[in-house]
Amino acid sequence: MSAKLDCALLHHPVRDRAGAVVTTSVTNLDIHDIARSARTYGLGRYYVVTPIEAQHALVRRITEHWTEGAGRRRMPERHEALELAWPVVSLEQAVADAEQRHGRKPKLIATAARSEGPSRITFESGRALLAADGDVYLILFGTGHGLADSLLETVDYVLEPIPGRAGYNHLSVRAAAAIIFDRLLGER
Amino acid sequence: MSAKLDCALLHHPVRDRAGAVVTTSVTNLDIHDIARSARTYGLGRYYVVTPIEAQHALVRRITEHWTEGAGRRRMPERHEALELAWPVVSLEQAVADAEQRHGRKPKLIATAARSEGPSRITFESGRALLAADGDVYLILFGTGHGLADSLLETVDYVLEPIPGRAGYNHLSVRAAAAIIFDRLLGER
Repeated sequence: MSAKLDCALLHHPVRDRAGAVVTTSVTNLDIHDIARSARTYGLGRYYVVTPIEAQHALVRRITEHWTEGAGRRRMPERHEALELAWPVVSLEQAVADAEQRHGRKPKLIATAARSEGPSRITFESGRALLAADGDVYLILFGTGHGLADSLLETVDYVLEPIPGRAGYNHLSVRAAAAIIFDRLLGER
Repeated sequence: MSAKLDCALLHHPVRDRAGAVVTTSVTNLDIHDIARSARTYGLGRYYVVTPIEAQHALVRRITEHWTEGAGRRRMPERHEALELAWPVVSLEQAVADAEQRHGRKPKLIATAARSEGPSRITFESGRALLAADGDVYLILFGTGHGLADSLLETVDYVLEPIPGRAGYNHLSVRAAAAIIFDRLLGER
């Protein structure tokens, strides 16, 4: 059932430390780690969203090394993960691609480290959405200091923050994505 | 209650692709990501275990940048995570340090991506151990292709693998540590 879930890592529009909307750079390890987590939890595609088209070539060079080149021979399981990674220029392009693949438009589930704001749902609710028949979903992660508020206002759902302990809530996006996939899709 | 849990990332003794026991290199992002996850879930200390003493200087340079230097001024929450990272030469040294801090010797919980082997416990059992009064615990993660078999045979417990979907089980150690902390300690 989880093949009806895709994910997207947004490098724009995201917040910087002061809350301004910026564009961040693609990093090698975000591609690897989130692709491996997405593959482990059975997601269909992992959109790497950046308006900087020169960085699409970087994404392709990394994925092709592991899906076609010497990396595939040395470490064949890595290509199964990295073939999920898919550069696109915008969230709209990711949505259009997902719609074409699934035959229906995906509902958008954003993630945020802050709990205030509209459309918040619990992890249990998110798990129930994915377990139900019908809709397909695209879950959105933000680099930098998180997805821009203007974006959070346009999505269908925003997942509650991961509840840490002792009031500290500064997970890497790589760690947050792994925990969120496990909470939404992991066997119990 | 979670302050009675520490973690250790072992760079030796770990397996390479072919199963041979090797020593891996310390990487910057393992230090950052696992420190942030450990801090989020309230762990007490994060031992970075490597017999290569020259790499201890690397660990200290990274942590001091964020706990004392320019990084602390620019990103103060990062020092709260990185002050947990603690280089040691061996698992024995980590155990001795934990024993001194807690006043009792920690029980060892190893992690593995393979389910066969002695002393396996479920995540539910691990969660119950940590919730009970009394013992303190040190959870062990392996770099490379996982902790050496010789080490797995000497620990008190080995956690069951993270159950993925569709038979793929190649999470990064950063993602695996995050999911395991959440399964053992996360609020539900």
